[in-house]
Amino acid sequence: MKVSVIGASGFIGQHTVRELLLQGHHVKAISRNGLNFSDKNLESFKIDVYDCSEEDLHLIAQADALIFLTWPHLSNFKAVEHLTETLPQTINVLEKLIRYGIDNIVFTGTCLEYGLVEGAISPNTPTAPTTPYGLAKDTLRRYLEHHPSLRYLKWGRIFYVYGKGQSKTSLLPQLRRAIHAKETVFRMSKGDQQRDFVEVETVAKRLVSLAELKTTKITNIGSGKPLTVKEFVEMEIKRQNSPIKLDLGFYDYPDYEPMRFWAK
Amino acid sequence: MKVSVIGASGFIGQHTVRELLLQGHHVKAISRNGLNFSDKNLESFKIDVYDCSEEDLHLIAQADALIFLTWPHLSNFKAVEHLTETLPQTINVLEKLIRYGIDNIVFTGTCLEYGLVEGAISPNTPTAPTTPYGLAKDTLRRYLEHHPSLRYLKWGRIFYVYGKGQSKTSLLPQLRRAIHAKETVFRMSKGDQQRDFVEVETVAKRLVSLAELKTTKITNIGSGKPLTVKEFVEMEIKRQNSPIKLDLGFYDYPDYEPMRFWAK
Repeated sequence: MKVSVIGASGFIGQHTVRELLLQGHHVKAISRNGLNFSDKNLESFKIDVYDCSEEDLHLIAQADALIFLTWPHLSNFKAVEHLTETLPQTINVLEKLIRYGIDNIVFTGTCLEYGLVEGAISPNTPTAPTTPYGLAKDTLRRYLEHHPSLRYLKWGRIFYVYGKGQSKTSLLPQLRRAIHAKETVFRMSKGDQQRDFVEVETVAKRLVSLAELKTTKITNIGSGKPLTVKEFVEMEIKRQNSPIKLDLGFYDYPDYEPMRFWAK
Repeated sequence: MKVSVIGASGFIGQHTVRELLLQGHHVKAISRNGLNFSDKNLESFKIDVYDCSEEDLHLIAQADALIFLTWPHLSNFKAVEHLTETLPQTINVLEKLIRYGIDNIVFTGTCLEYGLVEGAISPNTPTAPTTPYGLAKDTLRRYLEHHPSLRYLKWGRIFYVYGKGQSKTSLLPQLRRAIHAKETVFRMSKGDQQRDFVEVETVAKRLVSLAELKTTKITNIGSGKPLTVKEFVEMEIKRQNSPIKLDLGFYDYPDYEPMRFWAK
């Protein structure tokens, strides 16, 4: 099928485009900066969906499915702009894309929609976000669920995704940088929080399956297995056979995350 | 205490200002058009909070409590602008008012936050709005509940308010107009939906009590008694001793309301 991917050059976007091509789909890759690879089934368009022409939106809407991966302000989950800028902008773009013909949307939600709920979390767990980021995504989902012209909404709540192309400010790239720079100590939180770390390839596969699905579905995208942050970090240190020591407890726990939670 | 009322010249606003004065409070009445009455404890300011100066916002924020009653687009609960315009505008205004000193806010929610839940609804019932209007108010409440600088949030979900000064397009004013014009037939829905009709004076009293309350509270503002729409209409016809007949079933039921629900 023909799939438009918004945010195609991002971390999850690049993996998703490759997985779509692998599964034999035709891809319209939408991003501000374009892609650095090509394929006979890939069309790449430099478009900022928040600031583009109606023609661009018509072009994006000519597809069997849309995977929407863009979301600004990701560096600060507590920024009010998630609610006052990104949410209205995203609704306005989606309204037009739906009006121009898209009836099948995959959107990436977040485990932060659940707020401070602990343990194995099923997709039916009532959402209770405590951050503007989690609240904005949850509000978008509640809006789209009742949209009269959207036929299939697939909402995937992503847990702690990691892998190639991840933001340099994330935990694993920071650790790898420190190991590569032969630093002796890596500063982190106490590290006994249990998280659900999921590889970006797994996320991409799940998103592609969701795009192919002809039904409405809310789901979690995680590994389903809890791991402490410390265990996750130690696995990488062992894998690289590095002598780096951990300065556990240097940073506080984030106040917007529960101590232990993972996807069910 | 000193109370700022935003939306002071509106239907609920006028009654709330009078009730505040009756209870001995000092009132800063904020509205676009001003008030048509005066009082020694009443200061009236013509301000559009969505388009005003920082000085105006400072003036509003110099108060012990804020009762916020403005909300545009009320004629269409399904308008997406509740989410894309009113919600972000309202958050931006509230952010500034909180920054300038307000820590005690009464905000009027809506029974539409509950969506299609039937029966006696307690304030603890999980919200499930199906309209952009209900969703925008519910999202604002969830945002304010986690606001680090807001001390007291009082959230009152108003049911079917009626009374003096109500919009001419509402049920009771329409009926009164028809009776006054000596029309023979009044067109309405089947009328067997059970609603919670509450007098605006009761709503005003409840809002003033909430302003005085020094705690965070989510509550319903209704009569607590179900009444069918037909019974409600017939009471007014009887009161006016009018010979008008009802054309029941002329209009469909609204699709965003449950068949029977009332405040608990």
